Amino acid sequence: MIHLIGPRLSICSASQWTRFRKSLWITRNLHSRLRDTSQFVSLKSASKLRPISSPDYIASPNSKLKSLIWHRPLQNVLITKKPWADSTRQAMVDFITYLHDSYPEINVLVQPDVAEEIAQEFVKNPQSNPSEPHVLYTGEIEDIVDKVDLLVTLGGDGTILRAVSLFGNMPVPPVLAFSLGTLGFLLPFNFKEHQQVFEQVISSRAKCLHRTRLECHVIRRGPKGTTYESVAHHAMNDIFLHRGNSPHLTNLDIFIDGEYLTRTTADGVTLATPTGSTAYSLSAGGSIVSPLVPSILLTPICPRSLSFRPLILPQSSHIKVKVCSKPLQGPDNKVVKLSIDGVPLEDLNVGDEIHVVNEIGTIYVNGSQLPSSKDSDSTKQRHASKENFGIHCIAKTENDWTRGINELLGFNSSFRFTSHKNS
Amino acid sequence: MIHLIGPRLSICSASQWTRFRKSLWITRNLHSRLRDTSQFVSLKSASKLRPISSPDYIASPNSKLKSLIWHRPLQNVLITKKPWADSTRQAMVDFITYLHDSYPEINVLVQPDVAEEIAQEFVKNPQSNPSEPHVLYTGEIEDIVDKVDLLVTLGGDGTILRAVSLFGNMPVPPVLAFSLGTLGFLLPFNFKEHQQVFEQVISSRAKCLHRTRLECHVIRRGPKGTTYESVAHHAMNDIFLHRGNSPHLTNLDIFIDGEYLTRTTADGVTLATPTGSTAYSLSAGGSIVSPLVPSILLTPICPRSLSFRPLILPQSSHIKVKVCSKPLQGPDNKVVKLSIDGVPLEDLNVGDEIHVVNEIGTIYVNGSQLPSSKDSDSTKQRHASKENFGIHCIAKTENDWTRGINELLGFNSSFRFTSHKNS
Amino acid sequence: MIHLIGPRLSICSASQWTRFRKSLWITRNLHSRLRDTSQFVSLKSASKLRPISSPDYIASPNSKLKSLIWHRPLQNVLITKKPWADSTRQAMVDFITYLHDSYPEINVLVQPDVAEEIAQEFVKNPQSNPSEPHVLYTGEIEDIVDKVDLLVTLGGDGTILRAVSLFGNMPVPPVLAFSLGTLGFLLPFNFKEHQQVFEQVISSRAKCLHRTRLECHVIRRGPKGTTYESVAHHAMNDIFLHRGNSPHLTNLDIFIDGEYLTRTTADGVTLATPTGSTAYSLSAGGSIVSPLVPSILLTPICPRSLSFRPLILPQSSHIKVKVCSKPLQGPDNKVVKLSIDGVPLEDLNVGDEIHVVNEIGTIYVNGSQLPSSKDSDSTKQRHASKENFGIHCIAKTENDWTRGINELLGFNSSFRFTSHKNS
Amino acid sequence: MIHLIGPRLSICSASQWTRFRKSLWITRNLHSRLRDTSQFVSLKSASKLRPISSPDYIASPNSKLKSLIWHRPLQNVLITKKPWADSTRQAMVDFITYLHDSYPEINVLVQPDVAEEIAQEFVKNPQSNPSEPHVLYTGEIEDIVDKVDLLVTLGGDGTILRAVSLFGNMPVPPVLAFSLGTLGFLLPFNFKEHQQVFEQVISSRAKCLHRTRLECHVIRRGPKGTTYESVAHHAMNDIFLHRGNSPHLTNLDIFIDGEYLTRTTADGVTLATPTGSTAYSLSAGGSIVSPLVPSILLTPICPRSLSFRPLILPQSSHIKVKVCSKPLQGPDNKVVKLSIDGVPLEDLNVGDEIHVVNEIGTIYVNGSQLPSSKDSDSTKQRHASKENFGIHCIAKTENDWTRGINELLGFNSSFRFTSHKNS
Repeated sequence: MIHLIGPRLSICSASQWTRFRKSLWITRNLHSRLRDTSQFVSLKSASKLRPISSPDYIASPNSKLKSLIWHRPLQNVLITKKPWADSTRQAMVDFITYLHDSYPEINVLVQPDVAEEIAQEFVKNPQSNPSEPHVLYTGEIEDIVDKVDLLVTLGGDGTILRAVSLFGNMPVPPVLAFSLGTLGFLLPFNFKEHQQVFEQVISSRAKCLHRTRLECHVIRRGPKGTTYESVAHHAMNDIFLHRGNSPHLTNLDIFIDGEYLTRTTADGVTLATPTGSTAYSLSAGGSIVSPLVPSILLTPICPRSLSFRPLILPQSSHIKVKVCSKPLQGPDNKVVKLSIDGVPLEDLNVGDEIHVVNEIGTIYVNGSQLPSSKDSDSTKQRHASKENFGIHCIAKTENDWTRGINELLGFNSSFRFTSHKNS
Repeated sequence: MIHLIGPRLSICSASQWTRFRKSLWITRNLHSRLRDTSQFVSLKSASKLRPISSPDYIASPNSKLKSLIWHRPLQNVLITKKPWADSTRQAMVDFITYLHDSYPEINVLVQPDVAEEIAQEFVKNPQSNPSEPHVLYTGEIEDIVDKVDLLVTLGGDGTILRAVSLFGNMPVPPVLAFSLGTLGFLLPFNFKEHQQVFEQVISSRAKCLHRTRLECHVIRRGPKGTTYESVAHHAMNDIFLHRGNSPHLTNLDIFIDGEYLTRTTADGVTLATPTGSTAYSLSAGGSIVSPLVPSILLTPICPRSLSFRPLILPQSSHIKVKVCSKPLQGPDNKVVKLSIDGVPLEDLNVGDEIHVVNEIGTIYVNGSQLPSSKDSDSTKQRHASKENFGIHCIAKTENDWTRGINELLGFNSSFRFTSHKNS
Repeated sequence: MIHLIGPRLSICSASQWTRFRKSLWITRNLHSRLRDTSQFVSLKSASKLRPISSPDYIASPNSKLKSLIWHRPLQNVLITKKPWADSTRQAMVDFITYLHDSYPEINVLVQPDVAEEIAQEFVKNPQSNPSEPHVLYTGEIEDIVDKVDLLVTLGGDGTILRAVSLFGNMPVPPVLAFSLGTLGFLLPFNFKEHQQVFEQVISSRAKCLHRTRLECHVIRRGPKGTTYESVAHHAMNDIFLHRGNSPHLTNLDIFIDGEYLTRTTADGVTLATPTGSTAYSLSAGGSIVSPLVPSILLTPICPRSLSFRPLILPQSSHIKVKVCSKPLQGPDNKVVKLSIDGVPLEDLNVGDEIHVVNEIGTIYVNGSQLPSSKDSDSTKQRHASKENFGIHCIAKTENDWTRGINELLGFNSSFRFTSHKNS
Repeated sequence: MIHLIGPRLSICSASQWTRFRKSLWITRNLHSRLRDTSQFVSLKSASKLRPISSPDYIASPNSKLKSLIWHRPLQNVLITKKPWADSTRQAMVDFITYLHDSYPEINVLVQPDVAEEIAQEFVKNPQSNPSEPHVLYTGEIEDIVDKVDLLVTLGGDGTILRAVSLFGNMPVPPVLAFSLGTLGFLLPFNFKEHQQVFEQVISSRAKCLHRTRLECHVIRRGPKGTTYESVAHHAMNDIFLHRGNSPHLTNLDIFIDGEYLTRTTADGVTLATPTGSTAYSLSAGGSIVSPLVPSILLTPICPRSLSFRPLILPQSSHIKVKVCSKPLQGPDNKVVKLSIDGVPLEDLNVGDEIHVVNEIGTIYVNGSQLPSSKDSDSTKQRHASKENFGIHCIAKTENDWTRGINELLGFNSSFRFTSHKNS
């Protein structure tokens, strides 16, 4: 155990310390500024916390949700927020104080930059008569993510997306998301409810909605016809290809399960989860899909066709989209923009492909495996643990989604006049 | 001049009286019930009023509307409402009282059934100290409609449609529509404003929006290949063909200006004015069209095609829709329902056609004239007076329409949450 | 065993015979006309055939389809066609001849009216040198449907719907559908392929696509606030409510899992299976849903709203639609038309409800059970056998659906010109 | 008159020559290469040709088109093609040869780069026995465009757009467009018909469809709240604003005739002519609008709203779109891309505006004039000549448009199967 700051600095190994310092590069001047703050706050390394303890997700007969049951006590809680945003800082302080006061056995983990911010806050506004300093666990991301039993987010839907992305290809712990006023599809709880909601969670009385992500594999055309695959990305909402600034439409060949579906000339195309059905796919004309429908949405973006109706494909689909050219019809769009959950990633060139599958696995038919999926080890490992994949979002009611489409989207708003004819 | 009721009954010709009694069949017991009411109200025949005096509609340089200018003083005002509806009765009494008090030279006309209703109202709730009885002019519809300088409606959009339909194929006077709380696209004014608005109208300071109607000619297939045309109908909103209760889709051949456009297998098809673009066409997926765009909307109703995008056709189009059969593909829909402004009319059979043109006239190309339009006299007459056709609706502002699509339709409502990504 | 016609008439019990005669009422003159035909064809009662022997449907690792495996030999084949349609008669004769020649152990079952038709055909065009007469098993529907191991249909998609509906609430055997030229989503095979396809089926080398149906329960408002439930209907495509001939839009309150979703003022609303996503829902603007996506589509029909986007709901949803009235806004639509798979059923009145669930069962939340589903016996029975529910359609390839949307719907047709800009 | 090449070089003024040389900079090596070609081709300056002679466009009673009537003989014909494209070179040679042979009084004008290309072609493939060299008139664009009586295009729709844009803010002569195989909405004639079509045109027997363009004025926010207007652009198809590569949606405030309409958060928005209704607006979900409907289409591109239905606005509309920011909702899209007819122009920043009006003029209401339109001289000049604005496209039939939406777009394609129910 380490005390980061002050005279009571604990002993820790040199290598631990080095790694820890590296992860805390942004806090390099912290020492001097916080020299005398050890009575209020203590930062410790997350690396020595016990490893993750996953709950069970149990189906119940009269519910579409799963019960979140802890077999070993919930112990390590990662709290995330947009760093250095005023709006959520006080909420975080309140939540940490509540946890430390009410559940002293709970360890609070935070990202390094948030650690510094919150430490400053505790020093600036010290709790009256602190019996002992607030302990915050932090460290390098890889030291944090394998310790987290519960992920708490303070902010909007975007805060959740960023927090989840910290876990990369590892299983994501259950997510408890609090809104600070902002409304959102992934935000069932207002922060005002944080105490009673946390009590439900820790006492195994909470329920979860299971959302899954899409996996996007980029296969690039190398020299002499070779191909190579870059790292896979995860999308909670959507993966889209778009012409971006180019004046020319994209030409994309789309295959499903190894079989040719269609060629589209369009601004682009989006592949979305049901969670993402209320994001960009909706703007492009897609249907609204319940998160409980296992499926992948294929929605064209401004296609040059009267008859490209949005498609709802099986969750087990293996979808390939290949950038192609149309040499006979004027200049081509040579570069296509790839975005994941709205964040622009790499550009694709003619001949490059993306392969999209659900993270919980796919049935490959027609010998259409991905290069990477042929790697027997990773595949086996994946299938062994696939029940742990996806995001378990703690829900307020069975009908959070129904409420969402009405209150957030203004679904099926009535006209404010009687019809021309009847009045 | 006649006093309908009471001892001061004026002399009128026998034939006038007979026609008048006939039109007043619903008031046949009025005499006894209102025996002693002559001090409050007096019903007179509209037939002796001076004929209609149309205003001029003058374009002005910085306006999309036309100024309504009276060359001879406005004199005869027809006031309409839904008969026997409580909601509008008091407003009508108030408006008549205001007119009689402030503009004694104005003659108030009402439909016979409304005459009785309002007469009872004046008797039930007599104005304090009436110097003389309220005079209401009424009679058969054909005696009324050629006297009206201004049409006032109290109610909703439907009240306007019904009032306008009284005029059949005759020119319609300018329409001043008051809402009694109900919102509507054709309802710029609240009844609370009736005094200042009427002052603007009578003093030639009002402006009009010109709306035109569609004309629907039904051509039926007679025996041995003959055809015959039934009377034409006018539509302020729309004309639609629909399968109604039939389990089989309709098959309709659509021609524009004598040339084949398409065959649609669908629930039906609607032809709408820009005014009707916010009625049934909107529900079927049509665009919202400003009433200032001279055009006819052709919107399919649930077509069996991915590629029947709604069409906006020139106002001068001659559109023919023919009920056809598809003998090789199972049972046919033998009967198609025709509705005008939402009111069901006659049923059409296989081989029957409707021909739709704008009421202000059409350019017939390709020798595609209607049988009736070949009649040179009526055509000439029509063209001579076509500037009088259409409905001149008194407007509140240049942008009543913009306000309408925002306030009435909830056009482009924002989502109540920030996007998944940015928060 | 019975020989229906001719001197070799077998002995059968009186009651059997009576029931059989009743079912054959349309063949009442058959005896005289076919007196001397026993050498060509023999009609026997299906009632003594061995009961149904269901195959197993086995998932395989590299396929989205299930393998159809017979544990006991396939024996009883029901062949259906549209009765008295020339187009399919010869195909049926050919198929029966092929079966009798190649698989003498197979029993061919037909519906009574088809039996007569085919018998006449065998007599009119006798096979050269028939060693023995063609035996056809027939009888009352309830005697047929519990004997059938395989259902073969000759015709279009509609022939399949009618054939499946014969089984009412009983499990439906696997369906092998042949097209006779007509194209259809449910028609993977051309009749020309019938021999090789049947060989695959009988030798457990065929694969199936599992489609499920919706169950529609009608709850009517009885006197004094009571309700009663009529018999449930099954829909392979869709269930829709529509105003039909009424000039007034329907007002429908929609609930999901016992919770209020929305009120729609519209022509109507359709609830569709993924199979039905290419039927009426498509015309009304719905997305195209793969039959492998477990879901229920809720698509409005011409709604009076700009924001009623089609919804894709979980297959486990319990959807209630209640006919309601809007007393303050003019005349109501008192009667709403209910159609199942396009066939008009009963009319609904204000206060009546439909409850729609998937036939393989539902998770009822919020205490929203149907009256009938509370009956524990039937519920248990249902859950015990629910793996037998749904329709197993023998498929040609993994991608019949992809081919279908391209070839049948003209999905994403390209424009036949280069863009305005680039040429 | 000048002979560009060879010993017979005519005398011309020094200044003419200088300007001419400048315009021919790309032909700087032409002299040496073509030294001995004067017997085949002669390039002359267009600057001395007689000025433009516009035809009259006469309405006729049974036509939606206008008759193109020459009062002074058609003399100067500008022929355009995509430069250095093989596909159209031979057609141009054929057309020039036909004109020179059949109508020696016609002067053929070409752009400088095309002049060189065609000259080379005449030299490479000399006509057998040329009595005299082919004369081609060319020069700087400003010397060409005020001489042209008729504009001929060889190529696709894009060739027309580029040719028309040569004329900038000047009136555009009638356009005769030939296709070389490519299909297009603006391409009524196949090149095979060029002789008979040209004969119709020169003999005043052709008809024209009048298409108008949009004018786009960009008003930029300068320092200290000042604004300044850059040069106006013309759009035959559309003007659109789009986020391009930005990950953030655009926030745009839209005003019509000086009054606020709506704020849209979207990929962008497009303003289109009816001609452009089949271009990008169609992809974004807009209706198909006949070129005879005087209107401006406002179609959102992937809006974050369920209820932004496309709008059809009056041709006389003054539409302002202002780039705005939404400071409270995360990072903004600071730069918005402006494109005219698909060609990217300048970027807009927060506070910048575009003002869009039809080129034939606008009714400004509410004191919402553009800075430039307040300049009384230019306004007057504009109104004086506004009947000359727009593009008069020579048409083949009254129904080129109907043919186009069927043949080019695949409008209302039938499904290739009978409905699920009826077969």
